[in-house]
Amino acid sequence: MLRIALDAMGADNGVAPVVDGLLSSLQNKQFYALLVGNEALLKSFLDSKHLSDAILQRIQIVHANDFIQMTESASTANKRVDTSIYQAMQLLKKHEADACVSAGHSGATMSLATLQIGRIKGVSRPAICTCMPTITSNPSVILDAGANTDCKPEYLVDFAIMGFHYAKKVLGYANPRVGLLANGEEDSKGNELTKEAFKLLKSYDFFKGNVEGSDIFNGSVDVIICDGFAGNLVLKASEGVASSINIILKQQIKKSFLNILGYMLMKPAFQSLRNKIDYAEYGGAPLLGVKKPVIISHGKSNARAMECAIYQAAVGCETQVCDIIQEAFNNQDKGS
Amino acid sequence: MLRIALDAMGADNGVAPVVDGLLSSLQNKQFYALLVGNEALLKSFLDSKHLSDAILQRIQIVHANDFIQMTESASTANKRVDTSIYQAMQLLKKHEADACVSAGHSGATMSLATLQIGRIKGVSRPAICTCMPTITSNPSVILDAGANTDCKPEYLVDFAIMGFHYAKKVLGYANPRVGLLANGEEDSKGNELTKEAFKLLKSYDFFKGNVEGSDIFNGSVDVIICDGFAGNLVLKASEGVASSINIILKQQIKKSFLNILGYMLMKPAFQSLRNKIDYAEYGGAPLLGVKKPVIISHGKSNARAMECAIYQAAVGCETQVCDIIQEAFNNQDKGS
Repeated sequence: MLRIALDAMGADNGVAPVVDGLLSSLQNKQFYALLVGNEALLKSFLDSKHLSDAILQRIQIVHANDFIQMTESASTANKRVDTSIYQAMQLLKKHEADACVSAGHSGATMSLATLQIGRIKGVSRPAICTCMPTITSNPSVILDAGANTDCKPEYLVDFAIMGFHYAKKVLGYANPRVGLLANGEEDSKGNELTKEAFKLLKSYDFFKGNVEGSDIFNGSVDVIICDGFAGNLVLKASEGVASSINIILKQQIKKSFLNILGYMLMKPAFQSLRNKIDYAEYGGAPLLGVKKPVIISHGKSNARAMECAIYQAAVGCETQVCDIIQEAFNNQDKGS
Repeated sequence: MLRIALDAMGADNGVAPVVDGLLSSLQNKQFYALLVGNEALLKSFLDSKHLSDAILQRIQIVHANDFIQMTESASTANKRVDTSIYQAMQLLKKHEADACVSAGHSGATMSLATLQIGRIKGVSRPAICTCMPTITSNPSVILDAGANTDCKPEYLVDFAIMGFHYAKKVLGYANPRVGLLANGEEDSKGNELTKEAFKLLKSYDFFKGNVEGSDIFNGSVDVIICDGFAGNLVLKASEGVASSINIILKQQIKKSFLNILGYMLMKPAFQSLRNKIDYAEYGGAPLLGVKKPVIISHGKSNARAMECAIYQAAVGCETQVCDIIQEAFNNQDKGS
């Protein structure tokens, strides 16, 4: 049975959403959970849930004394062997777990995944791969969503290869189309970094050229490549727009009774919209380019987001996406 | 009376939105318009409107044989003296106009503004300054929105100084707060470029540190500084989110009669939202850092956007924002 190591500590809202998400996922999916964190805390939390033996038998608490707080620097993560994320990563390293999920300090998770699990041979830098809703029925994939603030053109090529195989194997897209995020669609557009990357990417069959910020949501390509700084900016700006529209609309709705009535009638439509653009439904973000499935969840993840992140870890194992990426780099696969 | 040179040619939807926007603005504001473009075309268009003498007396057509198409390169703009944008810029250069507005090729406009009108002494690079809606009653200002794809740290400092004075003088903010767009709010966040810029900006009183993509819309600062590549990405991603939400919501609304009824009742709220986030209301984007007011409008501008762009040009003249920026650079003003 699949074994997933779950870092229970260090998320913004404590252990509750992590454990609640785990319990939901255990009901829907057959796997064995290694719950890493403070044993006394986790045990009392599980006890309060009056769980069935069938569920309890699939949870093992792995004690860790310490955890890395969000305000700390990631640079010491590899020396702090008592932390929950270090211990979770060790389970993966020692083949006691098949995948690892954490909503704790993302810098520490990335650093430990790279140092302890190791990069896939040929991959210059691992990248965070995030799914985004589009106006079509298929989400798009953007990487790097924040792991590498400063990139070289070759890194972007590696992100493209990894994103292509992720979209193909994990999302099941027949022929994923890959675009390079730039300030215009024309071949001549871009900054120094993307212009160089464009030249390198031209020989790949999956490469469809430059795309713009708006293409993330319109389904014109399946995979969008950028450096981690740009990826972070566009994702946070997008969240900001969605949340601002929500706030402004609520301000307007309160202004008249007819608006309120209309809003009540439209609630199902708003709920569908919310489900479609809710980050929780997309779970966490896989760190592609390390040898085993590592899922980085948002520190603010709710139980639903943690549940989905666990499913993502399971799919990562089942589709053997890490092995497929390794094979692609071995074969210098041009995506045809 | 204020004289505004208006490039009538080269916009995506032809002369109609440009001239219609001009006619609306002439009704609301006392100024003299120098309408630059094909004389026969513009004359027949104006004739068809049956304008009053009072309006006609404030329009002078300045003939230009040629114009730069959107698909052309900006690099030859300075040699094509017969184009409408070249002629419009000459009117500004020769003191026959006080400001210039164009919805034509933005690269050509930037290039000609820099080469013909010239940079303000001390400004390393002119930047496009765009107003964005926020959840507060005050828009925020983002620059550079696309003029410079690759920047040096000093450029970002110049953008900050220009943005500060624009927000203070043109938008009337008492103490504009300036933030640097980065992948996190902590001082340690950023890429190589923004980390260096951060060090330089620290000595300015107006500088409030790093801000994230979502801060563009929440009013936490008034001015957001970034390179033109990042600025273009976040603006286009933001437009993409707003338009996708609109499309998804419409798909949902069609699914039930109650949704449609609710939508009808909520129409005033949606209209207010649309007005608030409609780019047209924000007009064009001033190119800050050149010696005279130059407004770059979106190629797809409708008449309302052109009208607002003309008001912006007028405000640019009335507030003497170019002189104020020159003074700030003369004095090495730290924004206190």
